[in-house]
Amino acid sequence: MIKFTSFGESHGVAVGGVIEGCPAGLAIDFQSIQEDLARRATGKTSSESQRREPDEVEFLSGLLDGVTLGTPIAFLVRNTDARPEDYADLKDVFRPSHADFTYQAKYGIRDWRGGGRASARTMLPYVVAGAIAKQLLAAQGIKVSAEVHSIGGETNPAKIEALLQQCREEGDSVGGIVRGSITGLPAGLGEPLDDKFQACLAKAMFTIPAVKGFEYGDGFAMASMRGSETNDQMDGTTFLTNHSGGIQGGITNGEEVFFNVAFKPIPTLGRGNRHDVCTLPRATVIVEAMAALTIVRFKL
Amino acid sequence: MIKFTSFGESHGVAVGGVIEGCPAGLAIDFQSIQEDLARRATGKTSSESQRREPDEVEFLSGLLDGVTLGTPIAFLVRNTDARPEDYADLKDVFRPSHADFTYQAKYGIRDWRGGGRASARTMLPYVVAGAIAKQLLAAQGIKVSAEVHSIGGETNPAKIEALLQQCREEGDSVGGIVRGSITGLPAGLGEPLDDKFQACLAKAMFTIPAVKGFEYGDGFAMASMRGSETNDQMDGTTFLTNHSGGIQGGITNGEEVFFNVAFKPIPTLGRGNRHDVCTLPRATVIVEAMAALTIVRFKL
Amino acid sequence: MIKFTSFGESHGVAVGGVIEGCPAGLAIDFQSIQEDLARRATGKTSSESQRREPDEVEFLSGLLDGVTLGTPIAFLVRNTDARPEDYADLKDVFRPSHADFTYQAKYGIRDWRGGGRASARTMLPYVVAGAIAKQLLAAQGIKVSAEVHSIGGETNPAKIEALLQQCREEGDSVGGIVRGSITGLPAGLGEPLDDKFQACLAKAMFTIPAVKGFEYGDGFAMASMRGSETNDQMDGTTFLTNHSGGIQGGITNGEEVFFNVAFKPIPTLGRGNRHDVCTLPRATVIVEAMAALTIVRFKL
Amino acid sequence: MIKFTSFGESHGVAVGGVIEGCPAGLAIDFQSIQEDLARRATGKTSSESQRREPDEVEFLSGLLDGVTLGTPIAFLVRNTDARPEDYADLKDVFRPSHADFTYQAKYGIRDWRGGGRASARTMLPYVVAGAIAKQLLAAQGIKVSAEVHSIGGETNPAKIEALLQQCREEGDSVGGIVRGSITGLPAGLGEPLDDKFQACLAKAMFTIPAVKGFEYGDGFAMASMRGSETNDQMDGTTFLTNHSGGIQGGITNGEEVFFNVAFKPIPTLGRGNRHDVCTLPRATVIVEAMAALTIVRFKL
Repeated sequence: MIKFTSFGESHGVAVGGVIEGCPAGLAIDFQSIQEDLARRATGKTSSESQRREPDEVEFLSGLLDGVTLGTPIAFLVRNTDARPEDYADLKDVFRPSHADFTYQAKYGIRDWRGGGRASARTMLPYVVAGAIAKQLLAAQGIKVSAEVHSIGGETNPAKIEALLQQCREEGDSVGGIVRGSITGLPAGLGEPLDDKFQACLAKAMFTIPAVKGFEYGDGFAMASMRGSETNDQMDGTTFLTNHSGGIQGGITNGEEVFFNVAFKPIPTLGRGNRHDVCTLPRATVIVEAMAALTIVRFKL
Repeated sequence: MIKFTSFGESHGVAVGGVIEGCPAGLAIDFQSIQEDLARRATGKTSSESQRREPDEVEFLSGLLDGVTLGTPIAFLVRNTDARPEDYADLKDVFRPSHADFTYQAKYGIRDWRGGGRASARTMLPYVVAGAIAKQLLAAQGIKVSAEVHSIGGETNPAKIEALLQQCREEGDSVGGIVRGSITGLPAGLGEPLDDKFQACLAKAMFTIPAVKGFEYGDGFAMASMRGSETNDQMDGTTFLTNHSGGIQGGITNGEEVFFNVAFKPIPTLGRGNRHDVCTLPRATVIVEAMAALTIVRFKL
Repeated sequence: MIKFTSFGESHGVAVGGVIEGCPAGLAIDFQSIQEDLARRATGKTSSESQRREPDEVEFLSGLLDGVTLGTPIAFLVRNTDARPEDYADLKDVFRPSHADFTYQAKYGIRDWRGGGRASARTMLPYVVAGAIAKQLLAAQGIKVSAEVHSIGGETNPAKIEALLQQCREEGDSVGGIVRGSITGLPAGLGEPLDDKFQACLAKAMFTIPAVKGFEYGDGFAMASMRGSETNDQMDGTTFLTNHSGGIQGGITNGEEVFFNVAFKPIPTLGRGNRHDVCTLPRATVIVEAMAALTIVRFKL
Repeated sequence: MIKFTSFGESHGVAVGGVIEGCPAGLAIDFQSIQEDLARRATGKTSSESQRREPDEVEFLSGLLDGVTLGTPIAFLVRNTDARPEDYADLKDVFRPSHADFTYQAKYGIRDWRGGGRASARTMLPYVVAGAIAKQLLAAQGIKVSAEVHSIGGETNPAKIEALLQQCREEGDSVGGIVRGSITGLPAGLGEPLDDKFQACLAKAMFTIPAVKGFEYGDGFAMASMRGSETNDQMDGTTFLTNHSGGIQGGITNGEEVFFNVAFKPIPTLGRGNRHDVCTLPRATVIVEAMAALTIVRFKL
C-alpha cells in the first residue's frame, strides 16, 4: 500500500514529496511525468504545451538506474518562477475567499508569498506521484482519466470559449465540473465501512483547492429518483446498468467508476495574464492524480 | 484526538464499537444517547418514538459511575430482532444494487443474513459514538444538526407525504437530500492538504450507506457561477457572506459549515412494513453523528 | 494487515477487543483459545488447569458458523470475579511502583478498582487475539513459542521452586526472564527503517506490564564482543550461525527469531493467595500473543 | 503531534526527510543542527570536529525567515562523498551480517552501493529532525542526552582507548552500550497500552542499525531482584527511589527516564580508515535524536 507525503510553499525553495511503499522493479517513464506536469502548468495536451518550459523534477532517492528500489521515492521541483515581491502588498491583507485568514487563525503566522501552502502549486507533487501511480495501475490494466465536463454551466466547446473570453475581458473567473472515470478495476476494492472506495475517492477530491462538490454514479440526480429506476439488475454476474457507478457497499464491482467534481471560480480576480480565469483545463490532470493515488492505497 | 472502531453484522450477536481518546471527566448523558437511537430506529423525534422499544446500549468499559476515565469506551447493542431465517432464500442470490456481489468478490464468503456488515444497522454504533461526540462538542459551544432538505426532489412537506404514500402503495422507494449544519466552530480546524476539514467531512458522509453525493457551501451551484458572485468579502475579520460554507483552504473560518448529502433510494423494494420506502428521516441523526465524529478527530 | 483494538478495566463490566483485517475463511479453533486463556489464568498447561474455571469468551461479530467473514471480530470476557470492595481502601492511596500516580497525573481521574486499565488483566484480550493470530500463522508454517528462561536469576527448576516458596513465605515477589522463539518465518518481513521487524517486536513486548528489557539474537552480550565473533557467515544462501537472531537490516532472513524479555518483580507484596509471587509462568502465553500479533501486522 | 518521514540511500542523490506537525513560530537554531551532524559524522564534540567539513542541510519548505510556518519542513543533504565504484565488487555478494541478503529477499532488487537504504547514513535525517525536536523540548525544559556507557564491556576510558587501538590493528570491530537520559518530562506522557512511553522509546531505539538490546530503569537486573528491593516508595507525591526509570504503567511519572541501548560490533571488518572500528561515539547523537522524536510524538 502506497503512502504519499508532500511538502512545499508556492514561493519557498521547492515543492516535492515522498512516495512510500511503491513496489520495487518498476521502470519509471519520466517522459509521461513531464507530460502530466505540462498539462498541469498549461491545461493543454503535450503537443500544444511545448512553448512553456515545464517544471523540472529532480528525483532524490528510491531509484537505481530509473527502476524503483521499493524504498521511499523522494523528489522536488524548485520554484524558479518565485517572485515574492509581487505579493509584498498582501502581507497584511486577508484576500476574500482565500486561505489567508484561516492560516493566520490556525498558525498565528503565514507565508504571504503567493498563497504559500494554500497555493494550487501544492498540487504539483501530487501530479508527479499520481503519474507514477498511473504507471503502476496501467501495468494492471487500470485506466484513470478526467476531462472538463462543463464550465460555467456550459458543455458546448464554442460556448465555453466565448464564456472564457468574456471573463478575461471582465477580469472575472468562472467555475466548472470535471468528470473522472476509472476503468479496468477488479471487483473487491474498498472496505465495508471506514475506508469505502467512494469515501476515499471523495476525500482525495476535496483535497484539491476550489472543489466544492463530489458525486459518483448517478449522484445527486438519484436523490430525485425512485428505487425502481436506479437499481442495477444483474444477469448472472453481469450488470445490465451502472447507476451505482461501479461501487456497492463501499466495494468496487468491476464496472466503470465514474464521478463528477465541482470547482468554484478561483477567487483571484482581474490580475491579468498571470492567473487563469478558469482552472478547469489544468485541473483534469490533478483529478486523475488524486484518483490514481486513491486506488494504489488499496491492496491490488 | 478521538478514534472510533466499530463492529457487527446486522443479524449477528451484536453491533457496537470502541471509542479511544475520549477525554476523561465527561459525565455521559445516557438519555440523549437513547433519544438518538430512537431517531435512528424510527425517524421520529423522541416524543413520537416512545411506542417502539429503542435499542439498548450496554457500556463495557471506560466509565466509572457514568464518568469517562480517558480509557477506551466500549459498548454493544444486541441484535434481539435478528431473524436470519427471513433471509434464507437470499443465501445464493445477488440482490440488485446491494453489496451481496461485492462482498462475495472481496471475501469469498458473506453473511447473507440481512445484509450482514453492509446493512444500515452498522450505522447504529456510529450514532452512539456520535451522541457522545455531540456532548463533547456542546460543552464547547459547537452544535451539529441535520434535517431532511428534500425527498424525491420535493421540499414541500405535504408533497413529500403524498410521494411517500405513493411509493408505499407501489412498493417503490425514493431518494432525497439531507442538509447538515455545524455552528460554533472556532476558526483554525483542519489541515492545509491531506486532512482538509471538508475532505474529512466528505469521507465521513460517504461512509453512510446509500450516499451518492456531497457538497458544502454553495456546492455544485458554484460550478455555474462567476468569481465576482461567489467571493466572500470581509469587513476586518467579519465575513459579509458565506458562499464558502465556513471553510477556506481546508481550514474553518469560524462561520457556519453547511453541506448537503444526497441519498439514493434504498434498493430493497416491495417488502412491505419491514423496510422503509425512504431512509431520509432516519438518516438525519446518522449525518449528525458522522459530522460530530469528524470534528472531534481534530484538535479542539 | 491485522489491527487490534482492546478495551476494558480490571473490575469494570468486561475486557475485550476488536480484530480488524483478519482474512476471511479461517475456521476458528475455539478450544485452543480457551487453553491459552487457561495458561494466562494459572500459568499451567491445559491438563493442570482444569480445576479453575477459565475465562469465557463471547464472540460478538465477524464470524458465521465459526468461520471468519473478513469483517471485524469483536469479543468480550466478563469480569465475573470483580470485587471492587476489596480495593476500596486504595481509593486515596498511590501504591508504590503501580500506575496509580501516573494515571491520576494523566487523566485527573482513575479507576482504583484493582488497577483498572493498568491491571495485568488487560492482557487477556491480547491473549485471545494472539491465539487467533497463532492459528493464522500455523497455517503458514510459522510457530511462536515462549518459555520461562530464569526466575530471580535461577535457571534450575528445583532452585526456582525453592526461591518461589521462599518468596511466598516472606510475602515477597521476584522477577525473571521469558525466552521467545519464532520459527518458520519467510525471509523478507519487516521494513528498512520505521517498522523494522525487531522494533515492532520490541514495542509489542514493552506493552506487557512489568517488562523492563528486551534483546534479540545475542543481545546485550554483543555489546562486549568483537565483529569477528558475531558475524553470521553464509555458505551461498545458508547461514552458518545465527548471532543476528534471524533479522538483518530490520528484515527477517528466514532463520529463527529468538529474544529475551525481562520482567521486574510484581510490586504488590504480601497479599497472600490472591496475587502471584511471580508472574513469569503466566507471562509466557502473553509473550507468544504479542509476538504473533506483531507478525500478522506484516504482509504475509 | 509530530510525524517524520525520511528518505534516501547511502550513495544515491541525497538523504533527507519531511517533518509534519511541527508547531508554528519556532525560530530554528541552525548552528545546533550542524553541531549534531558533526557529532554524527565524527563522534566528536563540536570543538574537535572542525577539521571535517560537516554535512550541509538544505531546507526546502516549512520556514519563512528561519521560523517554522506549521507546514511540512522538508530538507535534504546531498551525498557528495558518494563513490559507488568502491562497492562495484559487492554487487553480487551477500556480505555477512549485512542487510544485502534480506533486501534482496524482500524486494528482488537492492542498491548495492554502500548499503543503500540499510546504511547507517540513513540516520542522518533523523539527526536533523531530532535536533529540531530537541529545540522544541528545550523550550519546555526537557533535556535529552546520551553518552557512551561502555565499549567491549569496558567503562574505563583508558581501557576503552587501548581496546579500540587493538581493534584497529587487528582489523576488527567492537560493540558497546549507550546510556540515554531524559529529564524535565512532565508526569502523564504515554498511553496505558498500545503506545506506552517505554514501548515507543524501545521501538525508536531498535530503528537504529546495530541495536540488539534495550532496557530502562533497572532493566534486566530487575529480573534477578525481589519486589521488596525494586519498589519505588513515595513520600506524598515525591519518589524516594527511581528503579522504575521514570515510567509506571506506560506513563511518565515526572522522574528521570534513563535507559541503555546495546550495539553489536559493526559487521564490516578490516577496511581501514574509511570505516569505524566502533560506532558508539557517533551513535550517541542518534540515540538522542530518536528519543527526542519519540517524545514530541506525544501531546506536550
